[in-house]
Amino acid sequence: MTAVPSQKLLAIPGPIPLSPSVQQSLALAPLSHVSPEFVKIFQESLHMTREVVKADASSTAFILAGSGTFGWDQVGANLIEAGDRALVLRTGYFGDGFKECLETYGAQVDVIKSALGGAVPLNEIEKALKQAQTISSKKAYKMVTITHVDTSTGVLSDARAIAACVRRLSPNTLVVLDAVCSVASEDVQMDAWGLDVVLTASQKGLGAPPGLSILVASQRTISAFENGIKRGVKSGSFYSSWQKWLPIMRAYDQNKPAYFGTPAVNLVRAYHASLLEITKGSVSLSTRLSLHIASSDLIKRTGERLGMKQVATEPAGRAHGMTALYVPEIPGVPLTAADVLACVGKRNVVMAGGLVAEVKDKYIRIGHMGWSVVGNEGSDVRTVVRVLEESVLEAIALAKKRASAVVSARL
Amino acid sequence: MTAVPSQKLLAIPGPIPLSPSVQQSLALAPLSHVSPEFVKIFQESLHMTREVVKADASSTAFILAGSGTFGWDQVGANLIEAGDRALVLRTGYFGDGFKECLETYGAQVDVIKSALGGAVPLNEIEKALKQAQTISSKKAYKMVTITHVDTSTGVLSDARAIAACVRRLSPNTLVVLDAVCSVASEDVQMDAWGLDVVLTASQKGLGAPPGLSILVASQRTISAFENGIKRGVKSGSFYSSWQKWLPIMRAYDQNKPAYFGTPAVNLVRAYHASLLEITKGSVSLSTRLSLHIASSDLIKRTGERLGMKQVATEPAGRAHGMTALYVPEIPGVPLTAADVLACVGKRNVVMAGGLVAEVKDKYIRIGHMGWSVVGNEGSDVRTVVRVLEESVLEAIALAKKRASAVVSARL
Repeated sequence: MTAVPSQKLLAIPGPIPLSPSVQQSLALAPLSHVSPEFVKIFQESLHMTREVVKADASSTAFILAGSGTFGWDQVGANLIEAGDRALVLRTGYFGDGFKECLETYGAQVDVIKSALGGAVPLNEIEKALKQAQTISSKKAYKMVTITHVDTSTGVLSDARAIAACVRRLSPNTLVVLDAVCSVASEDVQMDAWGLDVVLTASQKGLGAPPGLSILVASQRTISAFENGIKRGVKSGSFYSSWQKWLPIMRAYDQNKPAYFGTPAVNLVRAYHASLLEITKGSVSLSTRLSLHIASSDLIKRTGERLGMKQVATEPAGRAHGMTALYVPEIPGVPLTAADVLACVGKRNVVMAGGLVAEVKDKYIRIGHMGWSVVGNEGSDVRTVVRVLEESVLEAIALAKKRASAVVSARL
Repeated sequence: MTAVPSQKLLAIPGPIPLSPSVQQSLALAPLSHVSPEFVKIFQESLHMTREVVKADASSTAFILAGSGTFGWDQVGANLIEAGDRALVLRTGYFGDGFKECLETYGAQVDVIKSALGGAVPLNEIEKALKQAQTISSKKAYKMVTITHVDTSTGVLSDARAIAACVRRLSPNTLVVLDAVCSVASEDVQMDAWGLDVVLTASQKGLGAPPGLSILVASQRTISAFENGIKRGVKSGSFYSSWQKWLPIMRAYDQNKPAYFGTPAVNLVRAYHASLLEITKGSVSLSTRLSLHIASSDLIKRTGERLGMKQVATEPAGRAHGMTALYVPEIPGVPLTAADVLACVGKRNVVMAGGLVAEVKDKYIRIGHMGWSVVGNEGSDVRTVVRVLEESVLEAIALAKKRASAVVSARL
């Protein structure tokens, strides 16, 4: 394979740049979805997916054609029965989405909202769980959902502590981790932490192109689902239905083909290549996570040096695969995220704008996951640091010029 | 770009081999889903999708991450209200799936089942429509679904005649065409024929990798949906929800980015490259369809010469992008589809087995769509013809040998 044509460096929180091996796998011609070659690729991908989230073989992995959003749908359609209560821990935009999804399938959702940039305090979670238990055991939450890293704010939730709290106070409640922006860029220990669902997507830390919804369900999650089916409950959606997908995933898991919908074979192949690197490559998963921490520290320190406050307020509550930074606030110098992003774009780098409505124009988001961090001895991260510095300084200079022009015009 | 590594020739009814230009687009690094470059690609893809199914700008195109099955889900979740009646015209396996999908969202479904290999007779459709109208106007069907080409049988339905019949006898009924295995390999004229929904997928005649659900909805379909919303009806699924996706598709349609779920950017780029070839390439769409007919005729004649009956019984009811052929029936020579497919595989070609349960082991399916037909001056089709001949003859010889060995052993 020759190199792909050069283009702007993607430094957004997904999609991310692909490794050469992933890119090459993506470039291969389609395989039959029932060919022995593809069945093996799919089987290994299911196994490696469990390995990455540290789940044993008693759990079930799903790799389906769809965006990250589709992971919520699988949870809502298969685990919520009308009237079930759910507790959503909201640390940004994506908590609202998960809430709405669960409501679509009839859940009564309580939300604990963190302050902007903060995590949800553990004592508030405890209070809510105790209260639910006190009313009646039937009123206990069916599930608690955690956004591990909310991509809109860069807030990292303490999934381990929250899961322990839920297990202690409400042992039958399922702990669902939205790990779209955390798998393979943050530590995720499904079994050890007692997580019941870990849902993610292909285009972030997992280092593949977008288009795959990836989910791992614990044995007790699958039991909860299957008990519902025995009672006559049906999946709320057809395309998300685990009644349909479970036999398919179980077949591929045992190296046998099965059909409900055609898998996205080229994306699965690219994902497989990335999983090979993550689980069997020269950089171990734990080193990979350390590299994410080091890159994150470097970018966050650079931002702070430039006078950019982090959206995520608590030092322990900051993601390591992305950074959300307010543009510098300088009295008399009106500066927006768009000003900074324009200067970034001129330097052939793409960073992202804000997503939280109330401060949308005041902050930028930078992705530093997967190959950007692990590949080329970190040269992408160095580029990001340089371009961030140059761009913020240029944007400030331009804004000052504009401001003084306005002042001159008034004189 | 250098050529991709050689592999077996895919001659299944999807996924299909990609053209070099599609393959090269697939190999490109991911773009940001909100970058001007990608937004333009998405906009053009929406426009060209409408062009291919011959729908004007009053209709709405959806390009979403998901398999072909997801198209059914969009129809069920957004157009069916609990208790709505639907009429499913079943010509194979995929009619059953569509029925079950509509039932998931509360539809009362009537099915008219064709004889195996046949189309649904028009007079039976007329009868059902009249009966429904007679009971009460409220009992009229909300929709009639047609599987244009049922990939399990290779039966082609006369979508034009059926649509005309529905429009005449039950004018408010939506005509929904499952065109997964027909767009760009069969004539589809959405506006002229009065179709309300044309749903398809990326990996068949449209010549892209699998993983995109592609759907075009007429203005009156969108009105029906929006009137439901006004009455307080909600989409039955979250991920399929047009309440969510309509504003997104409308934004991209006008060259503006918007977010609900991350689009499968690499697949969309490959799909865009294929659409460019289909709508603006050196082979016009009508020539493309003629080439499908010619290739189909050649393969079907080859099969017949080898003593293989077609699963699709009526000459006018046979697909042009795939062929389903029974293995030859020779008295005393037990021959299965697996025998023939093994000989095909030895020759580095992949054909598909049966999908209709009752005759599953007795027939094979051959795909001849897109680049296989249009590219390389038809060399793929010539290979398919040669390999089919050689393989059937070899499989017969091997089966005869086995049969005579059994006879000898008994003597």
